Amino acid sequence: MTGGLDVRRLTLDPDRALPAEPGTRALARQIYAASAALPLVCMHGHVDASLLADDAPFTDPASMLITPDHYVTRLVHSAGVPLEALGIGPEEEREHDPRQIWRTFCAHWYLFRGTPSRFWLSHELVDVFGVTVAPSAETADLLFDEISERLAQPEFRPRALFERFGIELLATTDSPIATLDDHRRLAAEPGWAGRVIPTFRPDPLLNLDHANWAAEVAELARLTDIDTGDYEGFLAALGQRRRDFAAAGALATDHGHRTADTTPMPAADAARTYAARLAGEEISEAEATAFAAHMLFEMARMSVEDGLVLQLHPGVLRDHHRGVRRRYGSDRGFDIPVPVDYARGLRPLLDAFGRDPAFRMIVFTVDETTYSRELAPLAGVYPALKLGAPWWFLDSPEGMLRYRQAVTETAGFYNTTGFVDDTRAFASIPARHDLARRIDASYLARLVAEGHLGLDEAIETAMDLAYAIPRAAYAPRPARRAAAPAASRRTA
Amino acid sequence: MTGGLDVRRLTLDPDRALPAEPGTRALARQIYAASAALPLVCMHGHVDASLLADDAPFTDPASMLITPDHYVTRLVHSAGVPLEALGIGPEEEREHDPRQIWRTFCAHWYLFRGTPSRFWLSHELVDVFGVTVAPSAETADLLFDEISERLAQPEFRPRALFERFGIELLATTDSPIATLDDHRRLAAEPGWAGRVIPTFRPDPLLNLDHANWAAEVAELARLTDIDTGDYEGFLAALGQRRRDFAAAGALATDHGHRTADTTPMPAADAARTYAARLAGEEISEAEATAFAAHMLFEMARMSVEDGLVLQLHPGVLRDHHRGVRRRYGSDRGFDIPVPVDYARGLRPLLDAFGRDPAFRMIVFTVDETTYSRELAPLAGVYPALKLGAPWWFLDSPEGMLRYRQAVTETAGFYNTTGFVDDTRAFASIPARHDLARRIDASYLARLVAEGHLGLDEAIETAMDLAYAIPRAAYAPRPARRAAAPAASRRTA
Amino acid sequence: MTGGLDVRRLTLDPDRALPAEPGTRALARQIYAASAALPLVCMHGHVDASLLADDAPFTDPASMLITPDHYVTRLVHSAGVPLEALGIGPEEEREHDPRQIWRTFCAHWYLFRGTPSRFWLSHELVDVFGVTVAPSAETADLLFDEISERLAQPEFRPRALFERFGIELLATTDSPIATLDDHRRLAAEPGWAGRVIPTFRPDPLLNLDHANWAAEVAELARLTDIDTGDYEGFLAALGQRRRDFAAAGALATDHGHRTADTTPMPAADAARTYAARLAGEEISEAEATAFAAHMLFEMARMSVEDGLVLQLHPGVLRDHHRGVRRRYGSDRGFDIPVPVDYARGLRPLLDAFGRDPAFRMIVFTVDETTYSRELAPLAGVYPALKLGAPWWFLDSPEGMLRYRQAVTETAGFYNTTGFVDDTRAFASIPARHDLARRIDASYLARLVAEGHLGLDEAIETAMDLAYAIPRAAYAPRPARRAAAPAASRRTA
Repeated sequence: MTGGLDVRRLTLDPDRALPAEPGTRALARQIYAASAALPLVCMHGHVDASLLADDAPFTDPASMLITPDHYVTRLVHSAGVPLEALGIGPEEEREHDPRQIWRTFCAHWYLFRGTPSRFWLSHELVDVFGVTVAPSAETADLLFDEISERLAQPEFRPRALFERFGIELLATTDSPIATLDDHRRLAAEPGWAGRVIPTFRPDPLLNLDHANWAAEVAELARLTDIDTGDYEGFLAALGQRRRDFAAAGALATDHGHRTADTTPMPAADAARTYAARLAGEEISEAEATAFAAHMLFEMARMSVEDGLVLQLHPGVLRDHHRGVRRRYGSDRGFDIPVPVDYARGLRPLLDAFGRDPAFRMIVFTVDETTYSRELAPLAGVYPALKLGAPWWFLDSPEGMLRYRQAVTETAGFYNTTGFVDDTRAFASIPARHDLARRIDASYLARLVAEGHLGLDEAIETAMDLAYAIPRAAYAPRPARRAAAPAASRRTA
Repeated sequence: MTGGLDVRRLTLDPDRALPAEPGTRALARQIYAASAALPLVCMHGHVDASLLADDAPFTDPASMLITPDHYVTRLVHSAGVPLEALGIGPEEEREHDPRQIWRTFCAHWYLFRGTPSRFWLSHELVDVFGVTVAPSAETADLLFDEISERLAQPEFRPRALFERFGIELLATTDSPIATLDDHRRLAAEPGWAGRVIPTFRPDPLLNLDHANWAAEVAELARLTDIDTGDYEGFLAALGQRRRDFAAAGALATDHGHRTADTTPMPAADAARTYAARLAGEEISEAEATAFAAHMLFEMARMSVEDGLVLQLHPGVLRDHHRGVRRRYGSDRGFDIPVPVDYARGLRPLLDAFGRDPAFRMIVFTVDETTYSRELAPLAGVYPALKLGAPWWFLDSPEGMLRYRQAVTETAGFYNTTGFVDDTRAFASIPARHDLARRIDASYLARLVAEGHLGLDEAIETAMDLAYAIPRAAYAPRPARRAAAPAASRRTA
Repeated sequence: MTGGLDVRRLTLDPDRALPAEPGTRALARQIYAASAALPLVCMHGHVDASLLADDAPFTDPASMLITPDHYVTRLVHSAGVPLEALGIGPEEEREHDPRQIWRTFCAHWYLFRGTPSRFWLSHELVDVFGVTVAPSAETADLLFDEISERLAQPEFRPRALFERFGIELLATTDSPIATLDDHRRLAAEPGWAGRVIPTFRPDPLLNLDHANWAAEVAELARLTDIDTGDYEGFLAALGQRRRDFAAAGALATDHGHRTADTTPMPAADAARTYAARLAGEEISEAEATAFAAHMLFEMARMSVEDGLVLQLHPGVLRDHHRGVRRRYGSDRGFDIPVPVDYARGLRPLLDAFGRDPAFRMIVFTVDETTYSRELAPLAGVYPALKLGAPWWFLDSPEGMLRYRQAVTETAGFYNTTGFVDDTRAFASIPARHDLARRIDASYLARLVAEGHLGLDEAIETAMDLAYAIPRAAYAPRPARRAAAPAASRRTA
């Protein structure tokens, strides 16, 4: 305490995010202890592979922790702070001094009370950077200097942190027209083969109303040397890139559609729509949505062939404020979830592939109403379907607890994927896994405390959720039994 | 523990499903103790009356507990086990050895962690069969032999279990074209009159796109000796069967519609649609849905006359996977809930009958979003409407707790029906009532612990929810005041 | 206890509504203690200004606490009691003896177990009236006499209670054609200027299918001396009344629309629709809804000019039972919530004004599914948008806790408005604020107990939620920084 100034200590409670009731907390501690140190399996990341391929040092806390993290910038903006003050916006109008940006963030630390960003940032500040005071207007400069100094040291470079974080496997998210050069560079380094793998994310190619569609289709042709001048060529080129990704280690595809619709079109109709778009004709939103639904069905068909796991996270109205997109670009915190109809939407796809042992689909949602009503019933019966971790806004203490409470009774633990992190913020990865393990331990501890489960079973389940279950969920389809969860190994 | 093998003890915690916090648990124990031994009122069962009329011994644990219970088979199937291995499917392809089926189930016991099936099955194994080890690949044969041996004893025959379970009244679910012979046989036995009663469930007759519709209509005519060749005759025959059911002790009708719509059609339109269907014309899904909505309104009108309570549970997409229905039939775990619009759907019916003292309607849902938004507000004002117990997937510890939390503040306890079990699994009935009483005790204990309710009131409410409230909810309308809850008797 | 009769003591647990777990309760007590005595800011009331302007004594408990409170009468009616017995309905058929009405209420006290009405009424009976026994058939007369006697004393007159309750500011809800005479009378009294302020609620004028629309439009013209014979005049007259309200102290407008749609129409179309309605042409429900959406957009535009805060609470099907409306009028408990699409509905308005520092909008909901899916994401990024307190049925212990649990992680505390009461029941105002402060303290205590927040931060947040945040949320836009929350003052 420094007389009158807002200087508060920042510490990490070793029992943080565990239940307050002493008996349940004691159980949760034991369960958490069993999973806490397991390696991190990161199947759905948005970190750029170049970060690790280049291994250049981070320069300062603002450009590392604030500007690129729209979880953080959106909340500061909600208090009326212009995005420019956080380093976002037109070159000539935005703040360029990282120290100023950091000061603005620190002065608004109070906004993060009760949010997962506060949990993650506190974890990073204390555990990664050894910081001991909380951000505030008064402490901003001190923290800026402290962290900047650390970042200059070799043990704070990306690969060193990767090792220190205990990451076993990091999947990135990549366009079909990405060269994957950074992945190849990494795979060529001693000890790095197979540790950073790409994920095939073709959204702009499957959404005919994407501004850049034609250019991407042309680049797809160039990369694959397949003529994408008609629909058949388009499919063939996509299939080729999927195989290229698989060869580069990819385990999955990733799809962010507006709806969960998966209704296939007759091939002739799809070909006609494709040709019309290619010819520059106007495509209505309804036509684009129908084509995307059709292509999702096609992606499933290809998954059966090449073994890539199909990930779907639909139901977001992107760029809610059009002026923000124009001035600041996408991913500024203005993507707003909307209701999703999974029961009817996924029916065509699941009818065709949902019981096929060669197929695996993982579904994420930000519409919690579907947990108990649709997703747990679907994942609780279709062998091909697993329910992904609570996504995005729901990757939080309350959000993860509600997920387990709403899902487990109908789908069990073994039809979920365990924890799947989903972040651009590299340094937050261990904090996110740690929080998920704490919440799963809390939920399991309550099951033990209330006589529903033995402690030995709870510990086994916690370990499975942290490691074996995500590995198994994303295992290439023919090989997936090799990585079956501990519980199934015991009894199979 | 038998060195290395997966042999875990199976016991029932006497405090299971009660809150972990010691003070609240002590209160919950007292509240639960007051309701635990009350008789079971089972108003919504799917047990076949022939089970009790024949009173034949069960033969083995697989055919008693596994194959007929789609809560169990669906979860084992979700892990990739073919339904055939569980005794389901074409005669020549399915497993016929109950011991093999039992082994498959036991090897997948871990899948049930955190599910209500685990709670019910554990209760049955320990409390009904005296088992002391948990199912696993290693213990499967031992359990199979132990349980089979018990089942051969007279005290494990259906009627003996009925007595032992403390069932006061069991309602079955029956087609209007059921003969009710088994009910009659039972009523003729000394001591069995009025203990097993039918429920009138006319879904296939009210849904014009039901495959068997024409045959059912013909059988309806035969049974009633009323010409169902036109809509008037159809209504008359339905009315006749309702009166037959009431005479056989029925207290209620039961309706599983796609939507909650209750819009009546002009009689001439209904007659025309009926005639078209009877003439074999194509009926669209929209026409069928509109006719079903109309018939629900007609059912309410008949309820006002004959006093049968109208039960509705809409909003399920039946047979989500068409191939499963073709190969394995319905009720295989592939029924998936969808959103329901109760506010607008029920409006015509409630506008007409919702304040009529001669009418009683009970609504169930698997769409939890409607609890606080629509159903509690409706049940909290319409005298004719009561809110049924959490249904199906929601008949679970978390599901029942969420129900009380979402419903009570707006509708109170006395506009719900108390516990209504809903199962094909005869031996699970006491476990289900026991779990419901524990959860209600838990919820009431928290109200006491947090100063919202006196312990005496909580105990009175728990007893009412277990016994007096369901009796009153299903009491024939003119007589219903006779069985008013204890709380209202005190004060009326 | 008076032998056999239902006479139970009525007391207030000092720890009521705080968590049962002793460690968390101790924290909650400290947090609650810091906010408990802060002044009441009542920004969304339905108390009539004449109550305070006239300052006439209340006559008896039934006409003060029962007949005007549809939260109470609806629940008694749900048990089958005719509304007439509660003093509601046609003059010649309804009960006129307040003692009889009070007896009917008291005999049904058990219906309120677990409801917030029970919490509020208990608080009022004990804390305001000094009652010591619970309502019941046996105690009804005793309580009636006791309370009636108190009400005759000067310290129970409206203004005396206002002072005793610690109300700093009370906003009423007023029609644009209200004269505001009562507000003026109060402002002229020594010590009363600015303590009772009007709120501009133009619903009947913006909804073209309102029965009284034409008469209201005519009265609007008379009051403003502006010709409302065309759409331009209509807008000008509304703008004039908004300025009159602001001059009388109003801080906000209030809008209860069917949907959240805010799509503007071309001015010419709006003018044409207005003219058609004025000419007495038939307006479809769709046209009326579209015009209302357009007018909401216009209200936002006017807010930017005059600084009034725009409050919206959409999504209620009013007068669900048409016969009840005809016989008993509106506001009888038959208003039923329906789902609301905020993401798409608010988009036009937020696109235009959501980042404008001169604009402030507060959104309420009774559709909890939108908390985590739409409203918290919107409030967590748009500077102009704040999320109102849990509204109506959700103004309850479980409802308020679910709100914080669903909203805080995405929007934080400082994008909510803190507590906003919403009641016709004058004597329940302190009970409502007290309950909200207890629930916020409970939620914050859990954050402290689980290591997410320091106790000092929790106390500061609780105080902000009770006082500084609602003051800031409703502050006139240019001046709003003056009343910034404590947390932001520390750091700004």
